[in-house]
Amino acid sequence: MGKIYVVGLGPGAGSQMTLCAKDVIEHCPVITGYTVYVDLLKEEFPDKVYLTTPMKQEVQRCEMAFQEAEKGHDVAMVCSGDAGIYGMAGLLYEVGKKYPDIELEIIPGITAACGGAAVLGAPLMHDFAVISLSDLLTPWEKIEKRLRAAAMADFVICLYNPSSKKRADYLSRACDCMLEYKRKDTVCGIVRNIGRREESYEILTLEALKEKQTDMFTTVFIGNEQTDIIRGKMVTPRGYRNV
Amino acid sequence: MGKIYVVGLGPGAGSQMTLCAKDVIEHCPVITGYTVYVDLLKEEFPDKVYLTTPMKQEVQRCEMAFQEAEKGHDVAMVCSGDAGIYGMAGLLYEVGKKYPDIELEIIPGITAACGGAAVLGAPLMHDFAVISLSDLLTPWEKIEKRLRAAAMADFVICLYNPSSKKRADYLSRACDCMLEYKRKDTVCGIVRNIGRREESYEILTLEALKEKQTDMFTTVFIGNEQTDIIRGKMVTPRGYRNV
Repeated sequence: MGKIYVVGLGPGAGSQMTLCAKDVIEHCPVITGYTVYVDLLKEEFPDKVYLTTPMKQEVQRCEMAFQEAEKGHDVAMVCSGDAGIYGMAGLLYEVGKKYPDIELEIIPGITAACGGAAVLGAPLMHDFAVISLSDLLTPWEKIEKRLRAAAMADFVICLYNPSSKKRADYLSRACDCMLEYKRKDTVCGIVRNIGRREESYEILTLEALKEKQTDMFTTVFIGNEQTDIIRGKMVTPRGYRNV
Repeated sequence: MGKIYVVGLGPGAGSQMTLCAKDVIEHCPVITGYTVYVDLLKEEFPDKVYLTTPMKQEVQRCEMAFQEAEKGHDVAMVCSGDAGIYGMAGLLYEVGKKYPDIELEIIPGITAACGGAAVLGAPLMHDFAVISLSDLLTPWEKIEKRLRAAAMADFVICLYNPSSKKRADYLSRACDCMLEYKRKDTVCGIVRNIGRREESYEILTLEALKEKQTDMFTTVFIGNEQTDIIRGKMVTPRGYRNV
């Protein structure tokens, strides 16, 4: 029996990968994942069997990984960011109920909250909530409930999947929920294409964020009541005592 | 002028370090940080100048880093986990108001939420909140408000600094806040010494978690209403559609 490693590549699948993730990819003869991320690896690791499925065929991708492991091959299932945060790790456990003999190991990676925070400065120095605005698998009412609860309790908030072509106004609707509890001039940040050549960021107010168009390669940060702009960066202090 | 890199080493400062973090440490002639983490690096990188301060002397540590950079040396300020999550990144920006000419770059690392989740299975597959139970810099009332808000909105919750000798009952008090909204049999997980030889984990109910003694090397995870035990691991499904 082979084993399946679920490997987070970090943002951009480059130098933000962990040493452990790289070792695992070098070790595994079979690499599987979403086409876009697998293509990033092919150049560096040409001598592998690559098995890909497009988006929305995640269950098939898991089945494929277990079938390869049943044949005796160690498999690396790769994801961008951290495989354990809105990634493939959970689905592999669910599909894996049928394959109890095949071992799973999760190799963590830098998720967009951490990678994006590093680009913006230090927005996550205090308690924070991570919320996906994708309503593909979650009712929008539940998403709004979480947005309001997190804003009410003054969390720093990091939004994944802030909008897409079909959901063009979701970020604006999320900002409306925030504005019920947070000031209009709350410091916010947007990071695009974290860890890639085209990486860019912007720091702006919550009021201005509401008017922004974003895409699926964007991660959004909304500060708490103490978040400030220092040296042109978004910085949340660690607590109430001043330096 | 030198430059300061704020480098998250990941849990345990071993193979969970990113390639980028390792490159930066190799590049910088001066390494500074909390004594315990710096000691982990000395063996692998003997030919560096190491400058350390003990806990609670974080401001002095930042000043020391800027002074070294002023002398023209590139400095790596190292932290365990991610320097941007309850780490040193924010404080360096605050202290750095006095040193506007010295560049800061944040190198993200694997934080305990990600590292611990990988050990437990896949608890963070859906929206989650990260809350520190340390009231050193935050009033306990604010911490309780965040605990209740996150529980009420059915977030998965990850607790940092769940207790210490002085704060022996804090985790128990936090569980009481959770139990106002979450079921007694909510699936929870504890991970100790993430990424170290002594690493261990336990999966238990919220009711049982309330009775647990933990320490500062423990990270606690409290599931949402869908979190389940699959193959002996703590797994939160991605959403409401079944596989």
